[in-house]
Amino acid sequence: MTKALEGIRILDFTRAYSGPYCTMLLGDLGAEVIKVERAGSGDDTRTLFPVKDGESGYFAYLNRSKKSIALDLKTGSGKKIALDIAAKSDILVENFSPGTMSRLGLGYEDIKAVNPDIVYASLSGFGQYGPYSKKPAYDGVISTMAGLVSLSGFPEQPVRPGPAIADSATGVHCALAVLAALCFKLRGGSGQYVDVAMMDTIFSMLEGFIPMASMLDMLPERFGNGNASSAPYNMYRTNDGFVAIATANESLFRRLAQLMEREDLIENPKFCQNYLRKQNVDELDQIISRWTAQYDSDTLVSMLDDAKVPAGKMNTVFDLLEDPQIKARNMLINQEIPGLGTFVFPGNPLKLSLTPPDTSQRAPGLNEHAEEILIECGYKTEMIERLKKDGVI
Amino acid sequence: MTKALEGIRILDFTRAYSGPYCTMLLGDLGAEVIKVERAGSGDDTRTLFPVKDGESGYFAYLNRSKKSIALDLKTGSGKKIALDIAAKSDILVENFSPGTMSRLGLGYEDIKAVNPDIVYASLSGFGQYGPYSKKPAYDGVISTMAGLVSLSGFPEQPVRPGPAIADSATGVHCALAVLAALCFKLRGGSGQYVDVAMMDTIFSMLEGFIPMASMLDMLPERFGNGNASSAPYNMYRTNDGFVAIATANESLFRRLAQLMEREDLIENPKFCQNYLRKQNVDELDQIISRWTAQYDSDTLVSMLDDAKVPAGKMNTVFDLLEDPQIKARNMLINQEIPGLGTFVFPGNPLKLSLTPPDTSQRAPGLNEHAEEILIECGYKTEMIERLKKDGVI
Repeated sequence: MTKALEGIRILDFTRAYSGPYCTMLLGDLGAEVIKVERAGSGDDTRTLFPVKDGESGYFAYLNRSKKSIALDLKTGSGKKIALDIAAKSDILVENFSPGTMSRLGLGYEDIKAVNPDIVYASLSGFGQYGPYSKKPAYDGVISTMAGLVSLSGFPEQPVRPGPAIADSATGVHCALAVLAALCFKLRGGSGQYVDVAMMDTIFSMLEGFIPMASMLDMLPERFGNGNASSAPYNMYRTNDGFVAIATANESLFRRLAQLMEREDLIENPKFCQNYLRKQNVDELDQIISRWTAQYDSDTLVSMLDDAKVPAGKMNTVFDLLEDPQIKARNMLINQEIPGLGTFVFPGNPLKLSLTPPDTSQRAPGLNEHAEEILIECGYKTEMIERLKKDGVI
Repeated sequence: MTKALEGIRILDFTRAYSGPYCTMLLGDLGAEVIKVERAGSGDDTRTLFPVKDGESGYFAYLNRSKKSIALDLKTGSGKKIALDIAAKSDILVENFSPGTMSRLGLGYEDIKAVNPDIVYASLSGFGQYGPYSKKPAYDGVISTMAGLVSLSGFPEQPVRPGPAIADSATGVHCALAVLAALCFKLRGGSGQYVDVAMMDTIFSMLEGFIPMASMLDMLPERFGNGNASSAPYNMYRTNDGFVAIATANESLFRRLAQLMEREDLIENPKFCQNYLRKQNVDELDQIISRWTAQYDSDTLVSMLDDAKVPAGKMNTVFDLLEDPQIKARNMLINQEIPGLGTFVFPGNPLKLSLTPPDTSQRAPGLNEHAEEILIECGYKTEMIERLKKDGVI
């Protein structure tokens, strides 16, 4: 056994982003992930941008380390196959709208009847219960309702993060909940039901902002790229992009002022203490911006690094494909898309020394592993041929 | 056993946000978390905003479900206590700058010598190796370097999310890696070293943007609160705030146009298909904004809900304290701060049916559990008295 979750089987009904991110992380860790896709077209993201010659890079990234079987879950034999795989699985993950799996006859109670010890995880926008549970969930809606947007951007213009953080963050929270339930099972406990919601997850990631409201009755302001408690701490324009500078204490500010050859700022009554710098932050940021604008980002960061002032260049995705740290951490992997070639995707961030994540298994073609999965479930060749003829697989 | 991780002991050297979020999640799940704090002042966040009568709500939120012992790790007896606890722990988590724990004589090799089967996890900005590993890491710097900022905000103005997502997201990824290593151990494997970095984590959460660059050689644009592939999909101003509307397909657009009593838009050659709506998105967003501005957010969302158009109000943290879904999901908990009263904090998003997370144990006072922890490690009363006299605890 050289993978952390080797021998653990996951029956995966997830589509789109949140669930697939969850099961990709678990698949990389060694679990056997059996992805059930809609017969005919498969996961909608198989055609999601970016697409090259009909192949989606979005799907290819998020579905490595998985096997695919396409099933029509509305047919009796499709449902029976799903139950047969569930009976031999340790974990089931799904991210349909609440209620859908039960309507298909594949809800927790249905699966428990064939596999009492399964860990059954549902991932959704608002959770399986509560007044909003039936609301359609999109990342943009959840981020907005869960507080993230109201805390981001500028006073007059709140901003939603570009990447769908509510999806990925909920995927990893769900993976954590699943492994906690698996640990419980491995130590003599039974299986159980896991219910993880995007709204709950984002709400729990709001840092100190809820205590701020509940303890001090204060509504947080939006600071743009600034910081609630320190200054200068912002993004500054260079002659070819932006650089973040984070001077979170007095000695860092002193080092910055020295590097700028503006030691006068250290003694200046407007800037000599953090609370004064916060009060006069616009003036200070303008002084710093005039300085940063003279340099290109790489030169500026190198100067700030040498002066030990926390700083970083705003990397674009092109920059990241060449970034020496990303490369050193094996965070860029090559993956084949059959018939198309080999492309670069993000690696796995869970660096376990003895059982490192394995990202070598490319995303599956639709239904690619149907026969292998059915044979493993005890289906005979003739039966498999009949299912093929009947269009069930 | 009614908690998922009951009987699992975690020695926790983390401070600030990323590590404490990781160990809080594991503590809520039932692990015994022993937080080692700096003798005298403790975790810096004990004084971090929001503060009321000297007590930090930031610390109180992120350090529930933990015990506290204050140690001077630079003294021989402080270090010995740390090693004694490590010898009896299943997991160790730390988020010092890379190299610090080894310099203290508490690196993985040192701990392995007293506990060969421990899972030892290090959480850091850039990871334990690579050219940037020694760079100081702040959320604002990492978000900027790892691509999140360059993908968020407006064409001329990239934006960093307000809450420190790089910290919390890395905390939960680290918790996942730790439980994967624990599962491996529970199934007959040995302990190992876990190395999780904020930069790797954020990079892995960039959705389809890396494949977009590597497969299509395309640099993503920033769309503000819009969406790369669908329109209308944005935040719209109401007469008292903002509402997110996400019409990700043709039938949703039709429903929206009907609700607006603007069926003409459905046939309008500028808006009749998604790619045309993307091309003419500014004009379309203006039409929608004029409509949304007539209503208050609650009324508008209720109309959109009735029409089954995905939408949500931009909730502030005040709104969230009253939100019926947040309440229904037990995402608001009451927690005592001794001497100050009881305040509301976010609950735990990992809803396990049989072993629900337990958020009842309030954040510890500095060194509150020193005696209990030392007795558990076999220290006798006289020894504990001497350590107190010597100022080690």
